[in-house]
Amino acid sequence: MRALRYTGSASGDAPSVRMFSDAPDPSPGPGEALVRPVRAGVCSTDLEIVRGYMNADRDAQPITLGHEFVGVVEEFNPATPAQQELVKRLKGKRVVGSINAVCGECDMCRNGLSNHCRDRTVLGIAGRDGCFADRFCLPIVNLVAVPEGVDDDHAVFAEPLAAAMHAAHQLHFEGKPYITVLGDGRLGLLCVQVMSQLNASVRLIGKHEKKLAMCEKWGIKHRLLRDIGRRADQDVVVDCTGSPDGLRTAMQLVRPRGTILLKSTFAPRVDDPVDLSPLVVNEIELIGSRCGSISGAVRALEQRRVDVASLITSRFAFENGAKAIEAASSAEQIKVLIDF
Amino acid sequence: MRALRYTGSASGDAPSVRMFSDAPDPSPGPGEALVRPVRAGVCSTDLEIVRGYMNADRDAQPITLGHEFVGVVEEFNPATPAQQELVKRLKGKRVVGSINAVCGECDMCRNGLSNHCRDRTVLGIAGRDGCFADRFCLPIVNLVAVPEGVDDDHAVFAEPLAAAMHAAHQLHFEGKPYITVLGDGRLGLLCVQVMSQLNASVRLIGKHEKKLAMCEKWGIKHRLLRDIGRRADQDVVVDCTGSPDGLRTAMQLVRPRGTILLKSTFAPRVDDPVDLSPLVVNEIELIGSRCGSISGAVRALEQRRVDVASLITSRFAFENGAKAIEAASSAEQIKVLIDF
Repeated sequence: MRALRYTGSASGDAPSVRMFSDAPDPSPGPGEALVRPVRAGVCSTDLEIVRGYMNADRDAQPITLGHEFVGVVEEFNPATPAQQELVKRLKGKRVVGSINAVCGECDMCRNGLSNHCRDRTVLGIAGRDGCFADRFCLPIVNLVAVPEGVDDDHAVFAEPLAAAMHAAHQLHFEGKPYITVLGDGRLGLLCVQVMSQLNASVRLIGKHEKKLAMCEKWGIKHRLLRDIGRRADQDVVVDCTGSPDGLRTAMQLVRPRGTILLKSTFAPRVDDPVDLSPLVVNEIELIGSRCGSISGAVRALEQRRVDVASLITSRFAFENGAKAIEAASSAEQIKVLIDF
Repeated sequence: MRALRYTGSASGDAPSVRMFSDAPDPSPGPGEALVRPVRAGVCSTDLEIVRGYMNADRDAQPITLGHEFVGVVEEFNPATPAQQELVKRLKGKRVVGSINAVCGECDMCRNGLSNHCRDRTVLGIAGRDGCFADRFCLPIVNLVAVPEGVDDDHAVFAEPLAAAMHAAHQLHFEGKPYITVLGDGRLGLLCVQVMSQLNASVRLIGKHEKKLAMCEKWGIKHRLLRDIGRRADQDVVVDCTGSPDGLRTAMQLVRPRGTILLKSTFAPRVDDPVDLSPLVVNEIELIGSRCGSISGAVRALEQRRVDVASLITSRFAFENGAKAIEAASSAEQIKVLIDF
């Protein structure tokens, strides 16, 4: 089968991405489903992997990319009666899914933090081939049926929307706080929509007039980064920039004792390390934020609570998958989709 | 009068510290008191200033160092009836004091966050000459009377103990968490004592066998850094190391969704920037922590809840103040005191 794979940098070669036509057909293990993707999305994490920015041992591992998908299950391999029940509900439906395949037995899993399972694999990111392939496997329990009213172009946003909604769940505040979302990329444009549904005064700060302009139709305040003052008066700053400059700006904008939600990772820049002393001096709370609830996101998509369709800026056939990834690196693009 | 001053690095010279014999006598402004210190303590922040590690505009400002003191008020200049009442309670008593001199009018002051006053000066750190001098000024409202039962060697710990107790107040947890205090220096040895009074399983991790051994008499668990595993299983890590390696270790030790309390600042190392991506991947909460309540610390000292006397490793007469600062830089020392 075909698979779009990161070829690693362990050999010392530049990391890169390449379409393989002869990747071995996957076979679902006990408790897993074999999924045929029908649509997939390119995420900034994919780009980070391709650039070799993920951590060192991951660089050593060639892996099929991709973790945002809507697909059809071609084969179930249930291992328990509960999984057999689940199969009945999923059969014939389109599915989306949680990307963390967990053990169910470690201290994290037993304590309600299974997204942080000690032995997890992560679809297309760590130890598990991803969805940029003709077929891939995920645990049956990870899958969520897509309601009929949610088409593929919407359903494919379930995973990033879940991540954006998760950020809102991590906040706890009283009154009506000022929230700034930093970064007008894929994730920032989802986050700002989710945050704008809280009882809060929300704005988006970014570098791209065209992307910021999307806020107009959503009735959300927005400003160009170069036009804002650096008064530390925001109760919450959600950093979706994926850059050390973003964290620096967040530390300038957040008020003392305020909260920075860090939604995106960045590689440490040797030439330009971030000074973290403002965190101590201003007693800032910095909270890392990763994956959220897929079923929650599917409900939000069904209720049309978030405009995702407007974020789609281009689409590629799967055979041109490498070009899709290249396109997604461009500042002109927001969400790039892959059609199978 | 005499004053031990940081001479700044604005001229491009190496930053340094020097005793001046002809510093101008300070005069208390409206609402201020003129304090004659009797004992003072050297803090790591003093060392950071001397090394030119504080932020750039501060480097440009020569300043009298010192912010840990117990002293006697020589002159009060009350500006309001409330301050006159306060003077009655302070007169003839030894005093300790909060180091943040605040405006009382900005949004932070009006919202109960006066330690983060927008227009504050900070004793011996920012915009206000410190206590390593024959006399210095502080607002009357900053002063706290020292009870008779608390001698000078104890009272001089009010400020750093307040900072340690503040860290404990910033934590919120259920059950009995695992807490690791990282760093067996001045602040770590105070923090671990305070944390050990919570309903928690507490240990101190450091590099110095002799300093760790102090935990024996306090009944607190302790381990050498080189002897510990890096399993991410601590609910809370309190980083008192003041080094980027400390933050790295903290990110390795804390469990996913756990809390890192960052008690100390460090200069970003150009050759060795810290990778913050574990904060996002493991959804860690990082909380900056600075000053605490001086009166709370005085109460704790009066009730002998913390052993501070054991931390004193040497003392210098004020005329040798520059040597006191040099001594405090040594890994052999814990708390270095200055006698006036």
